[in-house]
Amino acid sequence: MTASVPLLTPFSARHIGVSDQADQDVMLKTLGFSSLEDMIAAAVPESIRSRLALALPAASTEAEVAAELRALADRNTVRASMIGLGYYDTITPPVIRRNVLENPAWYTAYTPYQPEISQGRLEALLNFQTVVGDLTGLPTAGASLLDESTAAAEAMALAHRTAPATKKGATVFLIDADALPQTIDVVRTRAVALGLQVRVADLSRQLPADLGDNAVFGVLLQYPGASGEVRNPRGVIAAAHELGAVVAVAADLLALTLLTPPGELGADIAVGTSQRFGVPLGFGGPHAGYLSIRAGLERQLPGRLVGVSVDADGRPAYRLALQTREQHIRREKATSNICTAQVLLAVLASMYAVYHGPSGLRAIAANVHSRATRLAAGLRAAGVEVLTGSFFDTITVRVPGRANEILAAAEQRGVNLRPVDADHFGISCDEATTEAQLGAVLQAFGVIQPLPDGAELALPVDLRRTSDYLTHPVFNTHHSETSMLRYLRRLADRDYALDRGMIPLGSCTMKLNATTEMEPVTNPGFANIHPFAPEGQFDGYAQLIGDLQRWLSEITGYDAVSLQPNAGAQGEFAGLLAIHAYHQSRGDLQRTVCLIPASAHGTNAASAVLAGMKVVVVATSGDEGEVDLDDLKAKIAQHAGNLAAIMVTYPSTHGVFEDHIGAVCELVHEAGGQVYVDGANLNAMVGLARPGKFGADVSHLNLHKTFCIPHGGGGPGVGPIGVRSHLAPFLPNHPLQSSAGPATGPGAIAAAPWGSASILPITWAYLRLMGPDGLVAATSTAILSANYIAARLNDHYPVLYTGARGLVAHECILDLRPLTKQTGVTVDDVAKRLVDYGFHAPTMSFPVSGTLMVEPTESEDLAEIDRFIDAMISIKGEVDRLSAGEWSSGDNPLRNAPHTARSLVAEWNHPYSREEAVYPAGVDPMSKYWSPVRRIDGAFGDRNLVCSCPPVEDYA
Amino acid sequence: MTASVPLLTPFSARHIGVSDQADQDVMLKTLGFSSLEDMIAAAVPESIRSRLALALPAASTEAEVAAELRALADRNTVRASMIGLGYYDTITPPVIRRNVLENPAWYTAYTPYQPEISQGRLEALLNFQTVVGDLTGLPTAGASLLDESTAAAEAMALAHRTAPATKKGATVFLIDADALPQTIDVVRTRAVALGLQVRVADLSRQLPADLGDNAVFGVLLQYPGASGEVRNPRGVIAAAHELGAVVAVAADLLALTLLTPPGELGADIAVGTSQRFGVPLGFGGPHAGYLSIRAGLERQLPGRLVGVSVDADGRPAYRLALQTREQHIRREKATSNICTAQVLLAVLASMYAVYHGPSGLRAIAANVHSRATRLAAGLRAAGVEVLTGSFFDTITVRVPGRANEILAAAEQRGVNLRPVDADHFGISCDEATTEAQLGAVLQAFGVIQPLPDGAELALPVDLRRTSDYLTHPVFNTHHSETSMLRYLRRLADRDYALDRGMIPLGSCTMKLNATTEMEPVTNPGFANIHPFAPEGQFDGYAQLIGDLQRWLSEITGYDAVSLQPNAGAQGEFAGLLAIHAYHQSRGDLQRTVCLIPASAHGTNAASAVLAGMKVVVVATSGDEGEVDLDDLKAKIAQHAGNLAAIMVTYPSTHGVFEDHIGAVCELVHEAGGQVYVDGANLNAMVGLARPGKFGADVSHLNLHKTFCIPHGGGGPGVGPIGVRSHLAPFLPNHPLQSSAGPATGPGAIAAAPWGSASILPITWAYLRLMGPDGLVAATSTAILSANYIAARLNDHYPVLYTGARGLVAHECILDLRPLTKQTGVTVDDVAKRLVDYGFHAPTMSFPVSGTLMVEPTESEDLAEIDRFIDAMISIKGEVDRLSAGEWSSGDNPLRNAPHTARSLVAEWNHPYSREEAVYPAGVDPMSKYWSPVRRIDGAFGDRNLVCSCPPVEDYA
Repeated sequence: MTASVPLLTPFSARHIGVSDQADQDVMLKTLGFSSLEDMIAAAVPESIRSRLALALPAASTEAEVAAELRALADRNTVRASMIGLGYYDTITPPVIRRNVLENPAWYTAYTPYQPEISQGRLEALLNFQTVVGDLTGLPTAGASLLDESTAAAEAMALAHRTAPATKKGATVFLIDADALPQTIDVVRTRAVALGLQVRVADLSRQLPADLGDNAVFGVLLQYPGASGEVRNPRGVIAAAHELGAVVAVAADLLALTLLTPPGELGADIAVGTSQRFGVPLGFGGPHAGYLSIRAGLERQLPGRLVGVSVDADGRPAYRLALQTREQHIRREKATSNICTAQVLLAVLASMYAVYHGPSGLRAIAANVHSRATRLAAGLRAAGVEVLTGSFFDTITVRVPGRANEILAAAEQRGVNLRPVDADHFGISCDEATTEAQLGAVLQAFGVIQPLPDGAELALPVDLRRTSDYLTHPVFNTHHSETSMLRYLRRLADRDYALDRGMIPLGSCTMKLNATTEMEPVTNPGFANIHPFAPEGQFDGYAQLIGDLQRWLSEITGYDAVSLQPNAGAQGEFAGLLAIHAYHQSRGDLQRTVCLIPASAHGTNAASAVLAGMKVVVVATSGDEGEVDLDDLKAKIAQHAGNLAAIMVTYPSTHGVFEDHIGAVCELVHEAGGQVYVDGANLNAMVGLARPGKFGADVSHLNLHKTFCIPHGGGGPGVGPIGVRSHLAPFLPNHPLQSSAGPATGPGAIAAAPWGSASILPITWAYLRLMGPDGLVAATSTAILSANYIAARLNDHYPVLYTGARGLVAHECILDLRPLTKQTGVTVDDVAKRLVDYGFHAPTMSFPVSGTLMVEPTESEDLAEIDRFIDAMISIKGEVDRLSAGEWSSGDNPLRNAPHTARSLVAEWNHPYSREEAVYPAGVDPMSKYWSPVRRIDGAFGDRNLVCSCPPVEDYA
Repeated sequence: MTASVPLLTPFSARHIGVSDQADQDVMLKTLGFSSLEDMIAAAVPESIRSRLALALPAASTEAEVAAELRALADRNTVRASMIGLGYYDTITPPVIRRNVLENPAWYTAYTPYQPEISQGRLEALLNFQTVVGDLTGLPTAGASLLDESTAAAEAMALAHRTAPATKKGATVFLIDADALPQTIDVVRTRAVALGLQVRVADLSRQLPADLGDNAVFGVLLQYPGASGEVRNPRGVIAAAHELGAVVAVAADLLALTLLTPPGELGADIAVGTSQRFGVPLGFGGPHAGYLSIRAGLERQLPGRLVGVSVDADGRPAYRLALQTREQHIRREKATSNICTAQVLLAVLASMYAVYHGPSGLRAIAANVHSRATRLAAGLRAAGVEVLTGSFFDTITVRVPGRANEILAAAEQRGVNLRPVDADHFGISCDEATTEAQLGAVLQAFGVIQPLPDGAELALPVDLRRTSDYLTHPVFNTHHSETSMLRYLRRLADRDYALDRGMIPLGSCTMKLNATTEMEPVTNPGFANIHPFAPEGQFDGYAQLIGDLQRWLSEITGYDAVSLQPNAGAQGEFAGLLAIHAYHQSRGDLQRTVCLIPASAHGTNAASAVLAGMKVVVVATSGDEGEVDLDDLKAKIAQHAGNLAAIMVTYPSTHGVFEDHIGAVCELVHEAGGQVYVDGANLNAMVGLARPGKFGADVSHLNLHKTFCIPHGGGGPGVGPIGVRSHLAPFLPNHPLQSSAGPATGPGAIAAAPWGSASILPITWAYLRLMGPDGLVAATSTAILSANYIAARLNDHYPVLYTGARGLVAHECILDLRPLTKQTGVTVDDVAKRLVDYGFHAPTMSFPVSGTLMVEPTESEDLAEIDRFIDAMISIKGEVDRLSAGEWSSGDNPLRNAPHTARSLVAEWNHPYSREEAVYPAGVDPMSKYWSPVRRIDGAFGDRNLVCSCPPVEDYA
């Protein structure tokens, strides 16, 4: 007789919090179901259910998947990258890698919308802004953009809306011919959609002579240029200003430690990347782009901006500034769709600057420059024609007819150079360049003489930097590893991330980011590949990307997937661009109306505008908060031949599976429109329903929501799009990697061919670890948990919307408006009070003002879910005591939340006790999370805008 | 003209806190010196100064060293390890690897001697004790020993001092012939030194018939045996008890999830390793050994024991229990020299049990067993003779004349098996064994048939486990990765480690553990090598070990180094054993007296006793607290021909460079003795003086003090010894790896050939990163910082000892006795009050009762050193207020320290404010570390001993 062997715990039971049958039964019983499948059958409309099992590889163990990923990494060939073009090898200080990039306290944090519990990463971002502001010589910098090229596109848009020339009808954006090729492409893609013209011209000395007086609204210069040449842009800038144009300079941050900064040259805007400040190449991303501006443009800045304000005790505290200019507020009036930023990468770059300090950075830059000058001198001495006269780190050489041969010879010696044409190529030096590499380059030329030990500076005398930077103490204190380690720990300790407890953010899907998924990110085989590495050097990535495209197609029911969009909003833009191009390809030039339900995420409308569409809002109504079919019909009728698309979220942003999604799709299709389903809520559908099969034409997915890429404190994200076959020819492509997209596509929408490639292993690992059954279990559990919360809290806070069978999808909206009306207690009060209970607040006032939207995800276990429910009920009890008159509306634990430890030592004149303040029901004092500041006054900070490191005295 | 290029920041400037010249000048000025070299010349006696630069490789960059270490790791060959013998491949749950083994909050912590700020790791250790206690069926387990073999040696000693037979003169320790060969060797080494006899016999059925009535005091059984065979030991245990012997069972923890535990079989002691609970093989270590005991032996337990007590508020709190039985208290009366344990590894193993829980562990064991039974069945079906009838994971096969051929065939297929002899070998299965590996084994036999899908259990029916284990909630809660992650974070947050601030522990050298040094530890090329892997598979380790032996010889001035001792006290034992063997080899059998100064570390005396020596104490005297030369001469005269050695610490444990160390060495040498210099304080000498050159014959080093291996919360440590050439033949060796030591050696003193091999890359990296100049700078800075503290604090707390020129070495002793006498404020009060200020206390009452010994190390920067000094001065101010009568001696901030956040919410009747309590001068509320409990009552816990997880109700 054979012994029966118990099953080992699969990964899915590690990922899913409620994997214990007994716990599941408790929850099902609360909901009145006897099985999970029964509940799912009731929650998910039969009309959209997909009954076929997902055709994905069966789940593997963590050890197996880790081994597979190591094998994939090994199939990539790590070469010395001397390609340049905005991507440089760099040395991530190990103390920063381990304690930020590999530390869940940093990478599992959410966007700092709850600033009281985000002071650590807000300080890091303020440091980032200070680095960018100081180095570019422009006073205000944002808290990161997606990459250098999209930052340039944002600069174009900013120029267009602020340039005096725009008022006179200017529509031309002039780009330096020596700009990065991917930047030219991304800007052009964006310009075309907006109806603007891009003109590429030689701006090395002056503006072209043939510009009309009022034609140009903006100019983009590259400093140093892609060729490596450093030119003095003062004349061009002045001439452009005379034309009423705004000038942006795309500048290399490391070069700016030695070169006169754009601000001092007269530029209005600086853009670029902070990649080479310690962020691995990662085959193109993620990295933090930057954008800084001159005084007066603050309210025009795209993306997030961290500023200093004060808390309820009047002490300095950080928070996001000027939020009213952001897309989620301005919607179709938005001028940018930027939402996700690159927080984790901006933190890395800022810490690199903190660790090296100004003199350390200057030394790194000087060494990089010295390598380049010695190389140029060595080549010249050997008779090679070096075209670049003034340069920082990059030279272009002319070798008539021999370029390919020398490139190949260098590759054979382990070094990638930059191909230009048959006669030219480029060579870039960086922080990681070694003597051996320089020697290999010489050998590739057949040069035998050794490199000279030194060479003259090749920086133009009139462009050498004289101004100080990074004089703030934070950049001059933490230069020992011990001090740096402690600084990182101190900041991390101020923040609340998934490693402390639940972050029940509706629409954000804050689920487990498993270690096995995260470990490959720092594997050198994934981390150290240049995005423009030659074919054959990234076979591992190619395999991984191909797998992911196939698997995501299978999950969504689409025919093709592009992984280029490096944020959800970028995905929206790319998807709408595909729809736009599709209509154009059929001659339907007038189809530009995009219908968007009132409840949509703000980026939807903003993206539609960027894609050149006109937004028309469709009403929502009914118990389910569903798209109002009558209004939809009316709007379709009204815009009949002009209808381009509808953009809906499914399940809806109201957290409900609408039964009539099929009807919506049909109506739009009948009117010749395309259906865009926003994949924000895909976590409610994976394995149960496939948008590509129930009527949609295109969706973006959020790999950072549904597919386990961590939020990183507000980025990185990945927003791939899936499309049905008729839209596939219109997916993004890339000028420097032809395999990145169809030649028929609208161009690049991100700087890197496959966007944030280095974090794709996270999603790949998740899918391999879960397998088809695990994914269905995850989706089902996410829905179960949301319904359990809805059921248990409904008596205390009415659940605003439920579907036809009284169930919600994977999240639920708690309506606080009645309570606010009766008692004055706001969503803000409840959200901040939750901090005292040890929770991150749910999503506030989205999609409905005055409500809280709760999404537990499948990763929370019953104990944590119950802890949250108990906290919410306890808070309701506090509201009741308030309304019973026990406390005044001005002085109660809700209004005064969050309470700091410091507030306990002051005199205590509140009508509730210290204990009630900080250890309300159920809070374990041994595990208490302390908010480092009290409630922050956002308006004060907006009135007194400070967006770089404030003088130390301010903290006294 | 060639541009001058600024130097890049070397690693030494990251490691050394005071690398800024301006800061150094401030400190030198305080001391009245104009240069660091002048100060060093004054501090270090010229007589011992070594003026030759260290002949070590020049410093390399972090990137270079990381690459070199990756290359070394790649030179090791990772094969499937089916060798067994106490070492098994295992799967470290990635969430535990990343958040414990790769997290400085865990690995930079110190031994939990300050329990208030160590509650996190104390809880983890209590979990470890519960795991061991539950699985072995014995009620009390310690918080880890160094490895299975030394645990067996400790069991022998424990048996000897408690067995009834001992009183009747029994001197024989009987060991099962099927015990692990390295255990037999280690126990034998220890027995010989103690004058006991080891007899190895077949104990599979009964005791040998020829035992004298009163000969045997203890028995050691292996369960399952090294051969894999599981035998019922009940009869042997009962028979041994009848002889008045104590029985220890060396048991496999994983097997015990399925087998009747030793406690239920009647054993008095269980020993073993917890390696296979998720701790990588690491070429032999470090891993946590265990030892558990029956009721009644608690006060005999060697090593650390965590117990539950209460704090000043009466709430449960953990701390080390029964400390009075430890070596540092009992000194020459100690029965064990165990000091460093394997805390970090015990934490890993305990968390593995927490994550898997009882049913998960049972499933893992059942799967391991199933692999072994299927393999046995498959082999038998193919006609192979499997000798093992009852087994858990290991079988022994008989293949007359073919063993080597099959072993080689398996190796060729990537699998290592266990060689026995020409006709036999062993095969062990483990958690990581794959179907492919099992297939490879079959292929090695030439078997073509596939493995059967199942097989019958091979566990004896009468030994199948029926009792429960790990029923405590902690083992039944954290089974999702999210929950596990948060549990680890919660515990880490309760503790104070180097990532929060300074740990100024005299004699412990809590310096930076740099990330570049730590990263190789989790590289699979170092982590996944079996200690008994065949030659040719560990070339990387061989190179690294060879380098280290050379470099450490160079630094210490010795001729040979052994890396086997896996703790400092093991090094002491090995060094004294070498001295002992040297005398014996010369026929000087009577030379057994070991002179030890009164101020010595307690382990010195304990080790001497274990090495069979008689301890004679030498007085210390004078302003320097130096060895009293007159007393030394008297003691030498008294023990003339019997003198074996003197054991001194240099610089002395009084923190002073004694001028007359040369004289001490000479006197002892003249009397025919050997000089043992304890290397605890080597951090004051590296690059400045070499004990092997100024008169010593042998030293142990603490790689976990001077050479950057982190303390891990109380282990691992590495305590290599360096010896002059005449002692080299007497270094430890190993029965299974002949290259581990000289054939003439006294045997193995640790289970693994090179001890804790997997952490040696840390020290290797440190030496490569610092280079000779960096090391000298580090030593000089350590001395500078200690003197700066001494100078600034001397007016507030007199510095007890200084050297001839008024300087201390790398640490200083602050004398609190006058203050205690005047005010009643104790060292304990000051130490606990430092917690409120955000510091770990200095070393308390060692080497002089009533004092604090402060060692800043070179890694602390001036800001942190000043913060400490200011805190100490502020505390002195508090003492002054107390003695001025402002506060009573029973109620003041010192006596009540540390203050918890929780204590702020209670009624406050103290004569000082809440703010004074928790935010005394200079404490930044934003960065406050909160002690989770108040002062702990150790005596209460010792009176009410609870050493496993207490029922949850206790916390209510």
